[in-house]
Amino acid sequence: MFNERLEQQLKFILEIDKLKHILRQTILLDGSRQENDAEHSWHLAVMACLLAEYAKENIHLAKVMKMVLIHDLVEIDAGDTYCYDEVGYLDKADREEKAAKRIFSLLPQDQAKEFLGLWEEFEEGKSPEACFAVVLDRLQPLLHNYHTQGKSWQEHGVTSDKVLVRVGKIKNGSETLWNYAKEIIEDAVKKGYLKGHI
Amino acid sequence: MFNERLEQQLKFILEIDKLKHILRQTILLDGSRQENDAEHSWHLAVMACLLAEYAKENIHLAKVMKMVLIHDLVEIDAGDTYCYDEVGYLDKADREEKAAKRIFSLLPQDQAKEFLGLWEEFEEGKSPEACFAVVLDRLQPLLHNYHTQGKSWQEHGVTSDKVLVRVGKIKNGSETLWNYAKEIIEDAVKKGYLKGHI
Repeated sequence: MFNERLEQQLKFILEIDKLKHILRQTILLDGSRQENDAEHSWHLAVMACLLAEYAKENIHLAKVMKMVLIHDLVEIDAGDTYCYDEVGYLDKADREEKAAKRIFSLLPQDQAKEFLGLWEEFEEGKSPEACFAVVLDRLQPLLHNYHTQGKSWQEHGVTSDKVLVRVGKIKNGSETLWNYAKEIIEDAVKKGYLKGHI
Repeated sequence: MFNERLEQQLKFILEIDKLKHILRQTILLDGSRQENDAEHSWHLAVMACLLAEYAKENIHLAKVMKMVLIHDLVEIDAGDTYCYDEVGYLDKADREEKAAKRIFSLLPQDQAKEFLGLWEEFEEGKSPEACFAVVLDRLQPLLHNYHTQGKSWQEHGVTSDKVLVRVGKIKNGSETLWNYAKEIIEDAVKKGYLKGHI
């Protein structure tokens, strides 16, 4: 009915509505329910605007924002793999790569290429923007866990050594936020939200 | 415990988690439940990246993205006023202005000023970025209504003349998207999703 390019863009826009159904292990701050990927991605994008000043290297803010907005779209097909699920991680990369190809290829070629590129760059985690996007992706669930008294950590028997490995990537992207992360993990152990010693 | 600036930023980041609880009248595409404001804001930000090429004037994309990410934060205090609720609209501006002052002032002064400014600019709807942000804010619920066979329109007895007034602002920001919007409204009437004649 309309121009083909716009139809492709709208098809993608409708498809990604499914991200609102992908539940994460993160609990909302009022403890009422699990967060979904769309809410998480929104939260990271706002955090990007506010915390960019703590990035270790110069970053292009719009690129970080795009990256965090789309970084979990592959989970529409591949599902959310809980970060401490060792078995799930065995084929995570394969599942997500297939998903990325299907989902991004709904878009016109130039935009498919841009979004696939941004997702791959995020996954690789090496560019200044990817490093900082990873900071946000690790910090937000940490904040939620800490401020819900470690509810999700306890449900899954997660210990502080595992959390430190998981959020360790924060130090590649931001010294200030890494220091903050260590501080709240230490405090979570002290308060009994999280098992283990540091 | 940490530096005051970061504490203020994190306090705001935790506060805005509440946006995930503010329900809209829009129904998700699978018809299962109402959308919330965080999901809506995420969807608009992705749409901004993809549809920017249809903006009538040159726009600064990062500014549009920021605008749509934060445009509904005032609803944490003021609640979602359904766009066809004439009584609710009587004191909407007052309620939202108070909310904006409280919520944005959690931030360090420079960031509070930036976010309040972006929100006011969006509300005023005059700058190229605000015009385009409004396009997205009108188009996304229209798409959802159309693709859920007008469920929300029917529940609230909304007619096509009211929808046309509501989404009419799309024409200020994008000719292509305005033509598209008119086409699907006309089609919605034809298919019986929406009452009224055009």
